[in-house]
Amino acid sequence: MNTQRNILLTNDDGIGAKGLRALEEMLRPYGNICVVAPKEPQSGMSSAVTINHSIRLIEYTREEGMVRYICTGTPVDCVKIAMSQLFTDNKPDILVSGINHGANASSALVYSGTLGAAAEGVLYGIPSIGFSLATHHDPDADFRGCVYFGRKILEQYFLRPPALDVFLNVNVPDIPLEQIRGIRWGRQGKGAWIKEFDKRTDPHGHPYYWLTGEYRNDEPDAPDTDQNLIGQGYISIAPHHLDSTHYGELERLKQNWSLE
Amino acid sequence: MNTQRNILLTNDDGIGAKGLRALEEMLRPYGNICVVAPKEPQSGMSSAVTINHSIRLIEYTREEGMVRYICTGTPVDCVKIAMSQLFTDNKPDILVSGINHGANASSALVYSGTLGAAAEGVLYGIPSIGFSLATHHDPDADFRGCVYFGRKILEQYFLRPPALDVFLNVNVPDIPLEQIRGIRWGRQGKGAWIKEFDKRTDPHGHPYYWLTGEYRNDEPDAPDTDQNLIGQGYISIAPHHLDSTHYGELERLKQNWSLE
Repeated sequence: MNTQRNILLTNDDGIGAKGLRALEEMLRPYGNICVVAPKEPQSGMSSAVTINHSIRLIEYTREEGMVRYICTGTPVDCVKIAMSQLFTDNKPDILVSGINHGANASSALVYSGTLGAAAEGVLYGIPSIGFSLATHHDPDADFRGCVYFGRKILEQYFLRPPALDVFLNVNVPDIPLEQIRGIRWGRQGKGAWIKEFDKRTDPHGHPYYWLTGEYRNDEPDAPDTDQNLIGQGYISIAPHHLDSTHYGELERLKQNWSLE
Repeated sequence: MNTQRNILLTNDDGIGAKGLRALEEMLRPYGNICVVAPKEPQSGMSSAVTINHSIRLIEYTREEGMVRYICTGTPVDCVKIAMSQLFTDNKPDILVSGINHGANASSALVYSGTLGAAAEGVLYGIPSIGFSLATHHDPDADFRGCVYFGRKILEQYFLRPPALDVFLNVNVPDIPLEQIRGIRWGRQGKGAWIKEFDKRTDPHGHPYYWLTGEYRNDEPDAPDTDQNLIGQGYISIAPHHLDSTHYGELERLKQNWSLE
C-alpha cells in the first residue's frame, strides 16, 4: 500500500464536525493528510465562493501525518485556497469531502457544500470523492459504517481510478454497520423539496422565514436511484460530472427554433 | 401576444442592479411581472440556500403590471420564497434570471447565482432562463443588445418551449448592438480559473486573501462552446439540466469495480 499519498480533506459542517474526524480516521492508512475545513458550518452552500470580502487561512493543528487548517470561507474556497497556498508544488493525489451529517442524494446535490468541494476538485484535475451519512443532521451520528465501507471504496478507487472529469458521490444509510446490505452503483434520483418555509412573526409584528421543507421523491419505485438505494439499506455510489449541457435538447432546439 | 403571463424575475446582483432594470424592460410586453431579488449582491453564490439564519421578504415597489420584492437571502432563496409565499395558487409561466453583469459560460456555471436561480426554477417545474452580459462586472454596462436579442429568444421560447427539465443559459457579448453577429446554440466549454488569490498582509502582520484569478480556456479552438461563441461576437444559448450523473462512467465503473 502506498502510504506516501498526499490527501486533501474538507467538508461543509466545519472543522469541529464529528464527520470530519471519521473521515480523517478513514483516510489515515493511505497517506499524509492535509485538512482545510471551514471555520463555520457551511451546509447548503453549494459551489458558492466568497467574492465580496476577503478570507483567512489559519493553521490549526499539526501532528505526524496530519496538518489541519481553518478557512473562513465556503467549502469551495477551502479547496481553492488549499490549491493556491498549500499545494503549490504537488497536487493532492485525492480530495475527499465529508463525511456530511446528512444525505446528499437526488436534488440535494444541487445545494450540497460537501459536493461543491468535490466538484471543485474536478476543476483542479484532482480525483475527488464526497461522503455523506444519511442522518438527520445528528451531530453525534455513528460513522462506523462509513469508515468500514469507505475503505473498501477507496481500495477500488486507487486500483481502478474513475475518469478525471467525474467525482464520486457516496451516500451511506444511517443504520448500524452490521445492517448495511452492501454497496450499489446508483444514479441521481429525481425529486424536490416542498413546503419549504416556516413563517414566523417577530416581536415587532414583522414576518420572517426559516428554510425547512419535506422531500418529494418523484421516482419512488426506481431501483437504481441514489435516494432509493439508501432507503433500502444500501450504500449508493454514483459518478457525476460538471458539464450540465443537455445534448439531446440542444440538438432538438437547434432544429426547431428560428433564430435568424 | 398573450400579455396575461405571470413572470417571475430574479438576479444575483441585487435589487438595485442595472441589469435587473434591463430585464424588466425586456419582459414588460409579455405579462405581469413579479420581481423577487436579493437585497445584497450575491455573485458567486451558486445554488446556495440560507439554513443557519432566517430570511425576510419585503414588498419594495408596486405599479401597474409590476411588483418588486426584496429578499434578504440568496438567489435560490428568492425563487423558493416567491414560490412558497407569492405564487401559492398559480405557478409563474416563466422565470427569468439576470441580466447578470458578467458572463456565465464554461465553469462559471458552477458558481453562478444567476443560473442557480434558473436551476431552482427547473426544480419547481417552471420554464426558466438565465441572461448574462459578458461585461467585466461594469455596473453601468450597456444592455441594449440583451433586450433586443432577448426578445427574439423569448418569442421562440413561448412558441416552441424547451423540455421542462432544462433551463436555458443565454450569454451576450459586451459589444454594441449593431456588432452582435447573431444567436448561436452552444455547449458548456471546458476551462477553469487559475492564479486565484491575491494575498495581502493586514496592519497586524497577518495574511488575508481576496479571490481573483484568470480564466484558462481548455478548448480555445472549439467552434461550439459558449465561451468561444461569445468571444466571436455571437450570443450563445445553451440548454442545461440538473441530472449530473455521468452515465458512461457509471456503466464502465459498474463493470470494472469489485464491491462485494
